[in-house]
Amino acid sequence: MSPHLGANRYGKDGIRLVLVRRGAAEDDPHDLRDLTVNVRLEGDFDAVHTDGDNSAVLPTDTMRSTVYALAQQHLTGSIEQFGAALTERFLDASPAADTAEVGLREHAWSRAEGAGRPHPHAFVGGSAENSTATVTRTRSDGLDVRSGIAGLTVLKTRGSAFSGFLRDEYTVLAETDDRILATEVSADWSYGAGAEPAYDDIRATARAALVTTFSEHDSESVQHTLYAMGAAVLAGCAAVSRVGLRMPNKHHVPVDLAALGIANDRAVYVATDRPFGVIEAEVLRD
Amino acid sequence: MSPHLGANRYGKDGIRLVLVRRGAAEDDPHDLRDLTVNVRLEGDFDAVHTDGDNSAVLPTDTMRSTVYALAQQHLTGSIEQFGAALTERFLDASPAADTAEVGLREHAWSRAEGAGRPHPHAFVGGSAENSTATVTRTRSDGLDVRSGIAGLTVLKTRGSAFSGFLRDEYTVLAETDDRILATEVSADWSYGAGAEPAYDDIRATARAALVTTFSEHDSESVQHTLYAMGAAVLAGCAAVSRVGLRMPNKHHVPVDLAALGIANDRAVYVATDRPFGVIEAEVLRD
Amino acid sequence: MSPHLGANRYGKDGIRLVLVRRGAAEDDPHDLRDLTVNVRLEGDFDAVHTDGDNSAVLPTDTMRSTVYALAQQHLTGSIEQFGAALTERFLDASPAADTAEVGLREHAWSRAEGAGRPHPHAFVGGSAENSTATVTRTRSDGLDVRSGIAGLTVLKTRGSAFSGFLRDEYTVLAETDDRILATEVSADWSYGAGAEPAYDDIRATARAALVTTFSEHDSESVQHTLYAMGAAVLAGCAAVSRVGLRMPNKHHVPVDLAALGIANDRAVYVATDRPFGVIEAEVLRD
Amino acid sequence: MSPHLGANRYGKDGIRLVLVRRGAAEDDPHDLRDLTVNVRLEGDFDAVHTDGDNSAVLPTDTMRSTVYALAQQHLTGSIEQFGAALTERFLDASPAADTAEVGLREHAWSRAEGAGRPHPHAFVGGSAENSTATVTRTRSDGLDVRSGIAGLTVLKTRGSAFSGFLRDEYTVLAETDDRILATEVSADWSYGAGAEPAYDDIRATARAALVTTFSEHDSESVQHTLYAMGAAVLAGCAAVSRVGLRMPNKHHVPVDLAALGIANDRAVYVATDRPFGVIEAEVLRD
Repeated sequence: MSPHLGANRYGKDGIRLVLVRRGAAEDDPHDLRDLTVNVRLEGDFDAVHTDGDNSAVLPTDTMRSTVYALAQQHLTGSIEQFGAALTERFLDASPAADTAEVGLREHAWSRAEGAGRPHPHAFVGGSAENSTATVTRTRSDGLDVRSGIAGLTVLKTRGSAFSGFLRDEYTVLAETDDRILATEVSADWSYGAGAEPAYDDIRATARAALVTTFSEHDSESVQHTLYAMGAAVLAGCAAVSRVGLRMPNKHHVPVDLAALGIANDRAVYVATDRPFGVIEAEVLRD
Repeated sequence: MSPHLGANRYGKDGIRLVLVRRGAAEDDPHDLRDLTVNVRLEGDFDAVHTDGDNSAVLPTDTMRSTVYALAQQHLTGSIEQFGAALTERFLDASPAADTAEVGLREHAWSRAEGAGRPHPHAFVGGSAENSTATVTRTRSDGLDVRSGIAGLTVLKTRGSAFSGFLRDEYTVLAETDDRILATEVSADWSYGAGAEPAYDDIRATARAALVTTFSEHDSESVQHTLYAMGAAVLAGCAAVSRVGLRMPNKHHVPVDLAALGIANDRAVYVATDRPFGVIEAEVLRD
Repeated sequence: MSPHLGANRYGKDGIRLVLVRRGAAEDDPHDLRDLTVNVRLEGDFDAVHTDGDNSAVLPTDTMRSTVYALAQQHLTGSIEQFGAALTERFLDASPAADTAEVGLREHAWSRAEGAGRPHPHAFVGGSAENSTATVTRTRSDGLDVRSGIAGLTVLKTRGSAFSGFLRDEYTVLAETDDRILATEVSADWSYGAGAEPAYDDIRATARAALVTTFSEHDSESVQHTLYAMGAAVLAGCAAVSRVGLRMPNKHHVPVDLAALGIANDRAVYVATDRPFGVIEAEVLRD
Repeated sequence: MSPHLGANRYGKDGIRLVLVRRGAAEDDPHDLRDLTVNVRLEGDFDAVHTDGDNSAVLPTDTMRSTVYALAQQHLTGSIEQFGAALTERFLDASPAADTAEVGLREHAWSRAEGAGRPHPHAFVGGSAENSTATVTRTRSDGLDVRSGIAGLTVLKTRGSAFSGFLRDEYTVLAETDDRILATEVSADWSYGAGAEPAYDDIRATARAALVTTFSEHDSESVQHTLYAMGAAVLAGCAAVSRVGLRMPNKHHVPVDLAALGIANDRAVYVATDRPFGVIEAEVLRD
């Protein structure tokens, strides 16, 4: 009847890293990277929990320091490659761990456009859209990489219907063949076996496929468009084997202008926060 | 090479329900319940995604209406029992679904203490602490209930150490035998086989065990105290078979007053937001 | 046509201070204070802006350090007294400033109740309700203190009407003599001339007056109840000369259960987030 | 000694309005506007507060309806013009009010770029940057318009120093001639007497002036750059008589890599959240 330890893991969340890469010459343009990194370790940490024996515990403060220590050398390309280097380091530094997982989120900055040229060292930020990656390394199975995009907010004012659905005694929703469809897409994808993927190129291709398909699809439901978007990523990105999509329905409700004595030519909507529909699905390559 | 649908589910998040129960007489005290409910359905929804055929889709708007429709009759006791009724209804209403999951979060209100008595119809709220439950029903396996508490914020100023940990070249953290330990506990627990548990009584017992153990434990690490807290819930609640705990480390860093020419008698700390350690583990009954 | 500097001020926001006061003996209970402090200076800072001359600028980093440096000696009683000491220091340290303003917000912790007694060094937090103060000192006029409460969330299920209001062609709101009234009260008050007020006692009295009056008042509108609450603070606190109240209307809308074929005995409500009414007013002593 | 009412106002916050303007032909491109609107009325509302007499109160629900009712006809150009129409309506509809204030915030959407052209009815959003306006109308003084931008996040990696500042015993900050300067600009400006300004053109010019000056300015402090940015708006926009700027200092702290045995070629920074400096000033035309 005594208790014992089940699944467990620990790590550090919210490690904020900004990296500036300056050229050799004084006037060379600077490059800017802005990441938030999370770290998790799993393994044999029983004695930490049951006996208060910390000898196997790499402190979470060290995880933070490690992200900073490896940045200059390893954050030279994709966030996926930086994550791979970090997981390798964490398994080396923590013998008790059998799995290291690093989550990365890159915050976009674009060069300031002042003075008629992209500025060499000034940047404009503020987008909610992030590049994401989850890099997992286990001693037994090696590296697993998932790439993604979060916060991609899209809306269309035509080409979206929702009708022919199941009705019961509590169903009051009207059918529609013309509604606003809006969502904040979170996408992540896995890669098939083979050479190291061109992570950044694939992300750009996947993003274009998501936006174009959302825009062009003749939508019968969020599910219907989500599936088409996932299929488009697979069609455009040969290295991708699986796409996961989460698309909350950011409802836009037509305002009842008739009650105000005004004709509503499908023009005035209220954007609501809560409650909201949530649609999640994976699309797989056969 | 054609795509196909993988795991998928859909539902409604953020359904806000406030229920007032009034007595038979004009002056009877009122009872107040304040919940946020999430709903998810899983099952055979392939044609929705691939063909735009909505005939199997119970709208998420109907999920919302159903929560309101069932509230008066079924939200008479624990949130777990309300969730069980909701999942039963959703499987009945959605033949294509094989799993219905309902997440419930109850926001606490206490009776206003004005005028020297607990007030019959005025309430004070504002606590970040919630009662939670996740109720899942499948056609094959029936009901699974997880109960919990979220947002339980605790802090102790004595009896917390962190030393003897693994060090590497990036470890700069000092060992300490006297630090502030603070966390916001999220706990959830599962029940063993047997009669329907007394959900509310168990939650009260579990909460007391969590707070008392956090307070009294001679802590060598967050992991060490987390495990003791989980074990205490198991010891106090015979019906509970598993406790999951998530305890972010709300770091309190001693201010370097020496740099300001002032002696620091372990008095002045800065509470930091990011980054923060995260410790997660399950404690199981043998 | 040349530009010149108008009103300006600068300072530091979000200084987080946790102070632990331990007794002389090992087992004495600890006291815990948890504050967020903001600082602002105003004065003759023209050359900083127009010429880039920083010689008059006390860095905002020094404001932060000063809050920590003065905590042990001056945070021994009310937040108002701590604020008064800070403003005195800032005017001494910054000759160019003629006004120093310190905003303080105290986050409440209560002693953990585990093991049948208030715990000597373990605490439970998590309330959204804060004690607040804004302390302003000018070289010409000396000290001005405003005290307050923020995040006081209250709700009543009886004794609230809203009817007889102005109607125009866009008014669709139904009159009601029985609605839920809920709000998150922000209150602040000023003191008349005289001896130093007993800040903490007055805050306790004011809070009780606010809660009791909200609970007992026969409300015709938020404005009506707000005014009664302000008047009650004045009636209960002789040292208070002015009360400012901000009371957003946290709307609770009855669900249209009739559309679902169900009778609604004034029981089921949806709590909405946006939009929300906002009522602000001051109540003054003649 | 009896209480009386002081300054008071009331209104509605968070009115969410999405307006779709479709062309005459089926395939004409759609225009999308997405606003959040706040409304405030001030005037003679004493009896509402003191007597519970609602006869002078236009309900805040009517304010919401009015924003929707006027959208099709009046939201045809700038948010300032829509605000002017709303304030006129509110003073007409509320005889007791002598001041109507409307705050408007427009959320930017850009046309989706899928399929090689700006899409006629699909949009991408997600920027934190908003256009803002505060339109105030009084019966005595007529219309006052303030325009602005909020959430303009900028960062530069060169050309920012902070040195030569005042030091006291609590000053530990090091001087620097090379730091990251980052801020989230909130700007608002007023107009001089004369013809109705070209609000949208001026906003575009002001934004360019803010970004270019931030980028190019040789900064001795946030204050120094703020002033130059405000002066640049005045220089570029003849119709503007006053610019107010609020620039929180989003601190980027160099990581102490030396402690990790690594040389830091000014490359690795931690972006911190709290505390943060805040600089606010107005720049006026002589």
